[in-house]
Amino acid sequence: MEKRKIQTCYSPALYPLFHEDDTIVVVVDILRATSAICTAFENGVKKMIPVAGLDEAQKYKDAGYLVAAERNAIKQEGFDFGNSPYHYMSEEVKGKTIVISTTNGTQAIEAAKGKATIVIGSFLNLSAVSSWLLQQKKDVLILCAGWKNKFNLEDSLFAGALANQLRESNDFYTLCDSTIAAGYLYERAEQDLYGFLDVSSHRHRLKNLELEADVKYCLQIDIFTCIPIFNNDGLVELQSLKSFESVNSSQ
Amino acid sequence: MEKRKIQTCYSPALYPLFHEDDTIVVVVDILRATSAICTAFENGVKKMIPVAGLDEAQKYKDAGYLVAAERNAIKQEGFDFGNSPYHYMSEEVKGKTIVISTTNGTQAIEAAKGKATIVIGSFLNLSAVSSWLLQQKKDVLILCAGWKNKFNLEDSLFAGALANQLRESNDFYTLCDSTIAAGYLYERAEQDLYGFLDVSSHRHRLKNLELEADVKYCLQIDIFTCIPIFNNDGLVELQSLKSFESVNSSQ
Repeated sequence: MEKRKIQTCYSPALYPLFHEDDTIVVVVDILRATSAICTAFENGVKKMIPVAGLDEAQKYKDAGYLVAAERNAIKQEGFDFGNSPYHYMSEEVKGKTIVISTTNGTQAIEAAKGKATIVIGSFLNLSAVSSWLLQQKKDVLILCAGWKNKFNLEDSLFAGALANQLRESNDFYTLCDSTIAAGYLYERAEQDLYGFLDVSSHRHRLKNLELEADVKYCLQIDIFTCIPIFNNDGLVELQSLKSFESVNSSQ
Repeated sequence: MEKRKIQTCYSPALYPLFHEDDTIVVVVDILRATSAICTAFENGVKKMIPVAGLDEAQKYKDAGYLVAAERNAIKQEGFDFGNSPYHYMSEEVKGKTIVISTTNGTQAIEAAKGKATIVIGSFLNLSAVSSWLLQQKKDVLILCAGWKNKFNLEDSLFAGALANQLRESNDFYTLCDSTIAAGYLYERAEQDLYGFLDVSSHRHRLKNLELEADVKYCLQIDIFTCIPIFNNDGLVELQSLKSFESVNSSQ
């Protein structure tokens, strides 16, 4: 098999510079959207519909959907959930379709929607995603949600973790400086991700107690095996599709 | 004195997200525009006029100016110089005004032009720039030229080097994840910048011999003390201005 390429994009605003046909895009927003999405599917959610704007989220709410809406780390009033993973662990979510709109994560999905195969990555399902990518005959773009289109540490650490796993296989290579930098960053942090972020990023010192628990939760590696994938109008669990080919052909 | 803030922007395309009034912008394009600009001033160039487009560069050429024009690492035909620092070491440049247009560096200057005080940074004048910044009562934004609006390693390494020097002083702080990441990256690379880039970035393996000599040249630290600064319509040596206040008041 020909070697496949890994690229990393640090900001959804720059996605158009990185877009290439026939590439799998791994969207990551560690704190907290993609960690919450993985948690939701692991807890039996059937489908999640990411929407960029709160107006669109409200329309779904008015139509009777369960809707998650978060801006600047705060659950928006009148909606059912925020983007804490702990909001997606109850029996209430099982078998449901949930609409979700967040500050960064859903904006990243929006950037690539309709243009590429999109899967959802987090530390929680890291090895599941990398194992699956190793089986595909596709280049990979890791799309970091960042923070309001700026680089952030936690998404880049995930990019480094995923890229390093893929590059170990020798099936993948990278000529992409942001992937290389993310790999070095992960090597620096991997022994203690929480400690690294706690010391490094003052932003995390501003956290409240609930958010601190979320951060610790989101930095757990490989506690899940689900791979949320975008299919038609929303995210579903990859295993629930008859085959990946059905995703490819739906684009 | 109140502590001042450091931020780093990895792509000129994202400059609008980082712009704040009353901030000094350090533009960096290690390979090779800002290294060449520092070399030119150290060799007696009087003024450099950065222009974004080749059309504009041609107009200056037609009007009798010396003009440097580079795209994709290649000197453009019909112009006087490319962006190799070695093009700016002869007696020919002394006392002259040179117009310059490059793939990334002049685009980065263009992004911030007229909006902020701009100085030119490179490893060649690293400590001169940091010492001067320590004397100013301003926040600092390190604007990496990158490669066609994508992150690159060498500009980020410079950002890390500069930010680490400033943060050592305790007069500066950062809440900016890209600055923090650049600092870690520089710590990883600082013992052997050339070796680090050579091993890390496949892009550099594609280099020809002339470019290899340029890379080695551009990674020398503190061989110059000049600080090119944007004043009115072009770059001049900071020392040639009566005082920095004249720069501030010209905006």
